[in-house]
Amino acid sequence: MSETTTTDLYEVTMAISYLREGMLASATFSLFVRDLPPGRGFLVSAGLEPSLDYLSHFRVSADDVRDFAVALHRPPEEVSGLLGLRFDGEVHAIPEGHLVFAGEPLLEVTSPLPQLVETYLLSQICHQTAVASKAARCVIAAEGRPLVDFSLRRDHGPQAGLQAARLSAMVGFTATSNVAAATRYGIPAAGTMAHSYIECFPSEEDVFRAFARTHPGPLTFLVDTYDTARGVAIAGRVLAELRRGPGCAIRLDSGDLGELAKRSRQLLDAAGLTDVRIIASGGLDEHSVAELVRTRAPIDVFAVGTRVGVAADAPYLDAAYKLVQYDGRPVMKLSSAKVTAPAPKQVFRGPGCADVIGLSGEQPPDGKVPLLRTVMRDGRRTGLPDTLASARARFEADLVDLPEAARLIHGPESPVPIGSPRLEALTSEGRDRREATSAVPGDRSR
Amino acid sequence: MSETTTTDLYEVTMAISYLREGMLASATFSLFVRDLPPGRGFLVSAGLEPSLDYLSHFRVSADDVRDFAVALHRPPEEVSGLLGLRFDGEVHAIPEGHLVFAGEPLLEVTSPLPQLVETYLLSQICHQTAVASKAARCVIAAEGRPLVDFSLRRDHGPQAGLQAARLSAMVGFTATSNVAAATRYGIPAAGTMAHSYIECFPSEEDVFRAFARTHPGPLTFLVDTYDTARGVAIAGRVLAELRRGPGCAIRLDSGDLGELAKRSRQLLDAAGLTDVRIIASGGLDEHSVAELVRTRAPIDVFAVGTRVGVAADAPYLDAAYKLVQYDGRPVMKLSSAKVTAPAPKQVFRGPGCADVIGLSGEQPPDGKVPLLRTVMRDGRRTGLPDTLASARARFEADLVDLPEAARLIHGPESPVPIGSPRLEALTSEGRDRREATSAVPGDRSR
Repeated sequence: MSETTTTDLYEVTMAISYLREGMLASATFSLFVRDLPPGRGFLVSAGLEPSLDYLSHFRVSADDVRDFAVALHRPPEEVSGLLGLRFDGEVHAIPEGHLVFAGEPLLEVTSPLPQLVETYLLSQICHQTAVASKAARCVIAAEGRPLVDFSLRRDHGPQAGLQAARLSAMVGFTATSNVAAATRYGIPAAGTMAHSYIECFPSEEDVFRAFARTHPGPLTFLVDTYDTARGVAIAGRVLAELRRGPGCAIRLDSGDLGELAKRSRQLLDAAGLTDVRIIASGGLDEHSVAELVRTRAPIDVFAVGTRVGVAADAPYLDAAYKLVQYDGRPVMKLSSAKVTAPAPKQVFRGPGCADVIGLSGEQPPDGKVPLLRTVMRDGRRTGLPDTLASARARFEADLVDLPEAARLIHGPESPVPIGSPRLEALTSEGRDRREATSAVPGDRSR
Repeated sequence: MSETTTTDLYEVTMAISYLREGMLASATFSLFVRDLPPGRGFLVSAGLEPSLDYLSHFRVSADDVRDFAVALHRPPEEVSGLLGLRFDGEVHAIPEGHLVFAGEPLLEVTSPLPQLVETYLLSQICHQTAVASKAARCVIAAEGRPLVDFSLRRDHGPQAGLQAARLSAMVGFTATSNVAAATRYGIPAAGTMAHSYIECFPSEEDVFRAFARTHPGPLTFLVDTYDTARGVAIAGRVLAELRRGPGCAIRLDSGDLGELAKRSRQLLDAAGLTDVRIIASGGLDEHSVAELVRTRAPIDVFAVGTRVGVAADAPYLDAAYKLVQYDGRPVMKLSSAKVTAPAPKQVFRGPGCADVIGLSGEQPPDGKVPLLRTVMRDGRRTGLPDTLASARARFEADLVDLPEAARLIHGPESPVPIGSPRLEALTSEGRDRREATSAVPGDRSR
């Protein structure tokens, strides 16, 4: 599958029309999320690095021209104006890991014909921001306890699984079950045994001893295949005998995790196994993790999967990729319900995430710092690729400064950025101009 | 990214333990969905073809061994028993396109060590079945009107987007906006212009004329950038003048689509443009499509995206990959809440989707036909790869026979398969045996 043809057909029909009309002036598109989904007090900027990889390698090959022509039912020579096209524009963006809010541009792309890359950029940034934001809420809920990504099997395909592991590590998960992601991104890998493994042996005691024979390091035994209390007792006996030292654990994967963790902790402590940890998994998300923490369940590690990897309660974002400037002229969308503010922008962050959205050339208001950086110029990255560690540091720093209401697991309220006086003035000016030239008020609702 | 390492680490820890213990007997795993999500009266079997591609090419390379060793913090020689491993087993499966219900095995894999492939198979089949099922509901809601897939930009990455296009075509969508998917799967591509394109021109009249200069075929004009009624009037004037013949259309992408479609139809008809069609898009799903059809909105084509491509109301399925036989011995999971029925199975379909789940060797009950077929033997496909057209034919045939209650858009009720007498007997036998040997009743709730 060519990344170049991973695009909506209309990007191509428009591109060849722009070419034919000689409309090769520079355009700026802004990618932002209109409104946060219910249940979100913030979003975590994500998907930029894969997007810059894509833009760096973007090129329309002869095969792509042929595919475009087939899709359009046109002879290739009518599409061949696109042959060899690369992305040679400029990108301003909020680096990954930063917290972002409604209306803030995550990315602004300036070049001729930047529409060809629209679909791919949206497909990377929307879902990655959705998943990173969901994972971040789990980190808040866990209040410092380690989290492990178990989502691969339920994510929307292997590529989405790779991203889910990367994004959860970005916001502070300590490990992933996904081997490909672990080796590619340098994330610790985690995982031990499934119920089916246990069912292949005559007894749980046989299972645990067999597993220990193959694996010399710290052991984690899954204890709930038949009866949890008995499983814990057997696991405890084998662990006490083997003396594998710290790092050993039992895993609970079903039932009332809080209650089972309390009983398991008592059993382990009574057996003198106070350093054997308890890992919980099975349908967890930020809500159940928060409840387990609130009720003081003695769970040392949370493994979360499905609901986080697919951002189950908000699996998509209301994101837009809008033209804000063409040929040096600010452009704005108008409707009775909503206005898309014109011109390239900057986000100025103040303490407590009190953000101002202004114009890109503006001086930062007092005490506020700009978030968008120039990450590509002339189609090339302005620096080395960002690291997961840097993104994680940004996330951690921003999180400290996030207002309490936005951190809430239930009913969070997001900070609302305000427009700078210059942006507001430009927006009203555009509105007045449009109303003056429009016979009928616009009725677009998005 | 290696497909072989796209797996949970525990598949590897278990595999090397099985090797060390000499436990190389054949095992059968069954992949099924425990319960349908709320709002689903059926599922559409999907993801088998990509899964068979994966199994056909599955091989543990030297690089994979190195990656496994790194993930496990072990020297490669301790994992090297896996080097060169291929999938040489047997696969029985329900071909793509068939309707399936709770508890019915979509896929059964029999081989030594079939656990290594678990995660990848789940990651393909779960989300593809979820998306195909959502798209199928749109087809029901549209009552014969054409549907187009617009989901790529909101799907969970480019690979998920490719699948969403394939799956929606499988259940009867007539086109996709995704160029890569269109060329790869031979699906018609669709798409014309975005609002941003229109904003680059001085007026809508200029836009439509410019677009027509580049594109000689049937034209679709997006009419709602500023004021829809005026947009329709201008589009109508240009279309009347250009006389492009049948197949031309206008697209509505916002606002009250039903109301706007009615007004647009009146305007077009008044201008004598009775053959210009109306395409609607913008946040549609099966519920809004059904409502537009019910209220007789004169919409000729529905373009659906986001909510279908991510299966927004049910973005994951409660799927399981369970051991049902090891070394010729049926295996079952027991818990106070649920029982996983033992042994390899067959689904016998009767009229009206009155299904019986039986044992794989059983004679079909009267008037019922088996759904699972042998699709791989000795690690090779038993026939040519399935085609999208065949899967679509299966879907269409099954849909005709689906009870009305399961087709409902609001509050559907799914048919509930029953177990065959032989399967029920084997299940009780296993339950009795386990209760006899278990000191404490099982407390596993899943």
